[in-house]
Amino acid sequence: MSLRRDGRASNQMRPLKITYGVYGNAHGSCLFEVGNTRVLCAVMIQDGVPPFLRGTGTGWLTAEYAMLPASTAMRTSREITLMKRNNRSVEISRLIGRALRAVVDLSALGEKTIYIDCDVLQADGGTRTASISGAYCALRQATQRWAVEGIVKKTVLRDSIVAVSVGALNGQVLLDVDFSEDSQVDADFNFVMTGSGTIIELQGATEKQPISWDTVQMMHIVARKGIDDILVALDQIPLVAYTPASQPSVCCSSK
Amino acid sequence: MSLRRDGRASNQMRPLKITYGVYGNAHGSCLFEVGNTRVLCAVMIQDGVPPFLRGTGTGWLTAEYAMLPASTAMRTSREITLMKRNNRSVEISRLIGRALRAVVDLSALGEKTIYIDCDVLQADGGTRTASISGAYCALRQATQRWAVEGIVKKTVLRDSIVAVSVGALNGQVLLDVDFSEDSQVDADFNFVMTGSGTIIELQGATEKQPISWDTVQMMHIVARKGIDDILVALDQIPLVAYTPASQPSVCCSSK
Amino acid sequence: MSLRRDGRASNQMRPLKITYGVYGNAHGSCLFEVGNTRVLCAVMIQDGVPPFLRGTGTGWLTAEYAMLPASTAMRTSREITLMKRNNRSVEISRLIGRALRAVVDLSALGEKTIYIDCDVLQADGGTRTASISGAYCALRQATQRWAVEGIVKKTVLRDSIVAVSVGALNGQVLLDVDFSEDSQVDADFNFVMTGSGTIIELQGATEKQPISWDTVQMMHIVARKGIDDILVALDQIPLVAYTPASQPSVCCSSK
Amino acid sequence: MSLRRDGRASNQMRPLKITYGVYGNAHGSCLFEVGNTRVLCAVMIQDGVPPFLRGTGTGWLTAEYAMLPASTAMRTSREITLMKRNNRSVEISRLIGRALRAVVDLSALGEKTIYIDCDVLQADGGTRTASISGAYCALRQATQRWAVEGIVKKTVLRDSIVAVSVGALNGQVLLDVDFSEDSQVDADFNFVMTGSGTIIELQGATEKQPISWDTVQMMHIVARKGIDDILVALDQIPLVAYTPASQPSVCCSSK
Amino acid sequence: MSLRRDGRASNQMRPLKITYGVYGNAHGSCLFEVGNTRVLCAVMIQDGVPPFLRGTGTGWLTAEYAMLPASTAMRTSREITLMKRNNRSVEISRLIGRALRAVVDLSALGEKTIYIDCDVLQADGGTRTASISGAYCALRQATQRWAVEGIVKKTVLRDSIVAVSVGALNGQVLLDVDFSEDSQVDADFNFVMTGSGTIIELQGATEKQPISWDTVQMMHIVARKGIDDILVALDQIPLVAYTPASQPSVCCSSK
Amino acid sequence: MSLRRDGRASNQMRPLKITYGVYGNAHGSCLFEVGNTRVLCAVMIQDGVPPFLRGTGTGWLTAEYAMLPASTAMRTSREITLMKRNNRSVEISRLIGRALRAVVDLSALGEKTIYIDCDVLQADGGTRTASISGAYCALRQATQRWAVEGIVKKTVLRDSIVAVSVGALNGQVLLDVDFSEDSQVDADFNFVMTGSGTIIELQGATEKQPISWDTVQMMHIVARKGIDDILVALDQIPLVAYTPASQPSVCCSSK
Repeated sequence: MSLRRDGRASNQMRPLKITYGVYGNAHGSCLFEVGNTRVLCAVMIQDGVPPFLRGTGTGWLTAEYAMLPASTAMRTSREITLMKRNNRSVEISRLIGRALRAVVDLSALGEKTIYIDCDVLQADGGTRTASISGAYCALRQATQRWAVEGIVKKTVLRDSIVAVSVGALNGQVLLDVDFSEDSQVDADFNFVMTGSGTIIELQGATEKQPISWDTVQMMHIVARKGIDDILVALDQIPLVAYTPASQPSVCCSSK
Repeated sequence: MSLRRDGRASNQMRPLKITYGVYGNAHGSCLFEVGNTRVLCAVMIQDGVPPFLRGTGTGWLTAEYAMLPASTAMRTSREITLMKRNNRSVEISRLIGRALRAVVDLSALGEKTIYIDCDVLQADGGTRTASISGAYCALRQATQRWAVEGIVKKTVLRDSIVAVSVGALNGQVLLDVDFSEDSQVDADFNFVMTGSGTIIELQGATEKQPISWDTVQMMHIVARKGIDDILVALDQIPLVAYTPASQPSVCCSSK
Repeated sequence: MSLRRDGRASNQMRPLKITYGVYGNAHGSCLFEVGNTRVLCAVMIQDGVPPFLRGTGTGWLTAEYAMLPASTAMRTSREITLMKRNNRSVEISRLIGRALRAVVDLSALGEKTIYIDCDVLQADGGTRTASISGAYCALRQATQRWAVEGIVKKTVLRDSIVAVSVGALNGQVLLDVDFSEDSQVDADFNFVMTGSGTIIELQGATEKQPISWDTVQMMHIVARKGIDDILVALDQIPLVAYTPASQPSVCCSSK
Repeated sequence: MSLRRDGRASNQMRPLKITYGVYGNAHGSCLFEVGNTRVLCAVMIQDGVPPFLRGTGTGWLTAEYAMLPASTAMRTSREITLMKRNNRSVEISRLIGRALRAVVDLSALGEKTIYIDCDVLQADGGTRTASISGAYCALRQATQRWAVEGIVKKTVLRDSIVAVSVGALNGQVLLDVDFSEDSQVDADFNFVMTGSGTIIELQGATEKQPISWDTVQMMHIVARKGIDDILVALDQIPLVAYTPASQPSVCCSSK
Repeated sequence: MSLRRDGRASNQMRPLKITYGVYGNAHGSCLFEVGNTRVLCAVMIQDGVPPFLRGTGTGWLTAEYAMLPASTAMRTSREITLMKRNNRSVEISRLIGRALRAVVDLSALGEKTIYIDCDVLQADGGTRTASISGAYCALRQATQRWAVEGIVKKTVLRDSIVAVSVGALNGQVLLDVDFSEDSQVDADFNFVMTGSGTIIELQGATEKQPISWDTVQMMHIVARKGIDDILVALDQIPLVAYTPASQPSVCCSSK
Repeated sequence: MSLRRDGRASNQMRPLKITYGVYGNAHGSCLFEVGNTRVLCAVMIQDGVPPFLRGTGTGWLTAEYAMLPASTAMRTSREITLMKRNNRSVEISRLIGRALRAVVDLSALGEKTIYIDCDVLQADGGTRTASISGAYCALRQATQRWAVEGIVKKTVLRDSIVAVSVGALNGQVLLDVDFSEDSQVDADFNFVMTGSGTIIELQGATEKQPISWDTVQMMHIVARKGIDDILVALDQIPLVAYTPASQPSVCCSSK
């Protein structure tokens, strides 16, 4: 018998759904859904790199995460209206970029920058891990297109990458916590892993109650299962090849 | 024989599509599509009004329009990343708010504020008129919910409201210009009208070539047809009653 | 018998006054007064164009509108003090720039940018239309100077351009509404027209009450009279040739 | 024989001109001209004080100084366009406010704030001292009006206050340096003094060449003469009583 | 034989130094040094809490981390000069606040907010973990003072908290990586732990090379040793009781 | 018998203390203490100059002054957190830069910029004068290093420069006023002088009570004594030669 409100087993993911091509102008895109959490992920590439890479022949990848105002039960104000960055969004943007860079061969890009945009349509827990997994799906689609169009000639992706969150509650561990569980758990850990099971990023916080290393170990085991479940799902949902409506990718702005 | 790239008659709208309920947390929402232009529209209500209305017992309606970064062929930078408002978005946000206020009975709200959010998923011309029409659809859905939940007890909407753009090209008029046409026309006029055919807002600019009043008259006739076509479409696409997943609208924040 | 507080006929402008040369350093300037509405208009030209025009050999024109703090009965805070753009000023700045570009031959400028600054000294209704008319006067003066100094060798202005506002109240139309009338009218339409009577921009909003197309037609007729009255006034107020105090225009900054 | 380009004696001010009432809505205002330097000065009063004075029954005075874009030979960008305060304007705003507070009895105001706005129409050296002198003229006009309208019942001004700049060049001192002289002098000192000859503020900088105390002494003597000249001019230019166009000052906003 | 440039064993911390009382006005403060990394840590308390806690009787703790401009070999521009938050500093500020909240009994504070300020004087790797450990030292000192002065009557700290970073390089693990090592390691993990050895926060990133779970396990063992070493050092460096120079803590601002 | 709380004579400085080398990465640095006022001063040099100097072969010097949050009895919010410049800090930053430029031979630098950073650790009156004196000490140390490393080949400093504040109270003058005195004095004057006794900058304000020129004269005499006392102290505190930890100054960023 499950202890979870939605009847899931403690090591069970919420249902996954991936809809490719939600943006007609992005080079790769998807709507990534985990239960009621829904994130719009888009990938584009543009000429140019940040100053510290100019002249190196190497590319860059950057990510931006934001909540759409109506993604939460109580409307979230836009950052630009407040003229103030949302610190949580800054932290998550950095996480997504760092994670994806770990599986991208930046030297394959030349002096181009990959932009990943994750905009949360509906927030019900796990938006940062859904963003990473969704960004990977969109990036996979984009790399196929770039190869076809000759924009990037070498292999961009070195490995697959997906992410899950695991909660700890009274010594128990719960895979893929949703928003209602999130407010109860002692700790919330995010595992970002490759398809081959190695760790890319680990980010866990415990505002309520410190946890033991044994609990972290259990979390890792459950996270590993979640990662595998997502990878299976990714294989079952066929990657839709991008059909350019009318013209090739615009990536070579002179400005 | 049509002069238009997509074969449309000069007074023919692009296909319309309305998908209700794209946001699980908004009180009313839809994805409004006109050809390849796609706008996410959300409506929420919150306690409180701007300072100039405090103590009057009257409500307010405000709107925000933004382009998602991947909505354009060349990625559009986020305003918050640049720490700079996009002036065009400011102008359109004001237009949407002004237009919708013209059909809303603000005194029926009490001291509450309706927030309308229009986020462009794909831009192919006519995003501002699509935003107004889509905002109306989402607002219609939201008012039904508010009535059921008793959040607003009086009738909110005084009339229907939709909008179309009309272009002028060498004395010809073209209904619902798309992006490729937009760069060619001499003038681009936006007509915001009620269901009963009266004018709410008229906004026309001619950076290329001034036009005669006769042309404006012709534009109005064609706009009127477009408005009627949208209203028919709205009747054909059944308004999906909002099914609250688990809880009533959250509108009464103390802060 | 007039219905208007100041005894004007419904199709009568307030008195016009134009004082050229209020700025000693601008290339063209005037204080444009319509009744109690007073706007300082200045025109300057500088080397350089926005990024999207670099290398095209074509120039640009941009405008900025702002309210001086003491221009209103209740002091208006400066935007920079609030560190927040005033959205209404943004909208009007865009309108002025767009309107003036419609009568300027940008290709005649080479890669230079014309800057138009409209600063409201006293606001009593119709500041945006007064800004457009005043900007045209200042621009006319500046183009004469540029021609004399050889800064711009071709003809810059393709036509004259002036603007008026027209209000609608219970089916009646009122030319050139002042601030006290503005709060009563159902609709306020701004007509920007050329000297030859063609339409450059039309911008009308009706927050109170939608209006019929017949009313728009009547507004156009009255607007046309107002436009003619301003043009007559412009002819009667001699354009003062700019007398450079000591040195030619500075337009060729290397930065 | 004078060493100065405009033939002035070393202890001679440029011609002064004061035009009262340039703003119809300000409670006191003037255009203050010293040679080619021209500053628009406005004074208004509003209910409310900064947080540190709330509940003390004491008022406040604050000042803002800005350059209009066309006030300089090379157009000055607006601070709000750059989204960046101009540090020089910040420094001068603080100076003006501090200086005027020294002659105002803040306790006479009750919890009201006097706003002084100095906007430079034309900059030709000495804008900060012209702003102080002009602000005093506008404030004098405003206090008369406030007394008549009963807005402030006690005497606001404790003394007169005017300001001059003095330059030092090779041991010589020059009263009221203009822009062309300003770039040559070794030091530029601003003296803010009361009508009775006491010092309110002294602000002198020497980026080129340190100066001796003897030179400072000479500067003071010349400054004293300039102060007297301005005071005489103020007596000769009759203070125009403010004629409210239609209604009393608006100072009691509830917000 | 050590593989490290400074001759340390792979599980050896750099020398620790704690100087209490570097700020005369802070309620608790220290200069926390780990090798060449030096962080100024200050703790103050003020009345008031963020909006979401008002009326709950519970307090809050917030932290801010910044780099002093001269803390790096190449000067770091101030955020306020660029008018742009440094995203890395935002992320670290959130980490420090979250970590410290995990050992503070917020309900013991009443509606007061603890402010922690960590300003890096010299950056040589590990500034975020040094900030956490240093903030704990300063907080410990502050709580003693608050108890003496009766500002907080209950026990504030529930446990001790310190932090270390561990790097992974070719399957080896290195405790407390410095700046030169940081650019070489495959992964950099930060462990925030209590004195009793439980985990408060774990934050690890691998931009170069994903790592195995076995490596994470090894990292944990080495981190545990580092944590113990710091705790021993804390016991050896006597906590200097705060001697208020002249007056008790100012924490009860009305604003 | 002294009238001062700390028993000082009216023409006596508080104790001075200078600790060189507080920043390991700055090219010159010190902690400058005057009584309880403590300022961290750092000097670095970088390639590049502001736009108005590009191509002139001449260098620049700029300064930034800020209060650390815990430097005051009531915590001072960071400017970046408020997203708003502190106007007082802007004014003082400009003063420090202007003063130091007066003794630096900018043409000796080539197109390099000297950055001076003054961060107040503890504020007890006189932070701006302490910043100037401390900046001079740090700059003196840096110039020795730059000479040794060959970064700047010519002599940078043309003279010594130190600063003191003098207060006036009921016609008496007080050298080096502290915070508690600062709130009582009628006037507070800052004298920035060279070692040879000439005036670089004079900045005096009297918000409470205008003062006579005789008082200014007395202030100058006392200031002169304070300047001499500081210069003596500077000679007694040996300038510590900078010992680069590991590598020469990094000043030649290409960006």
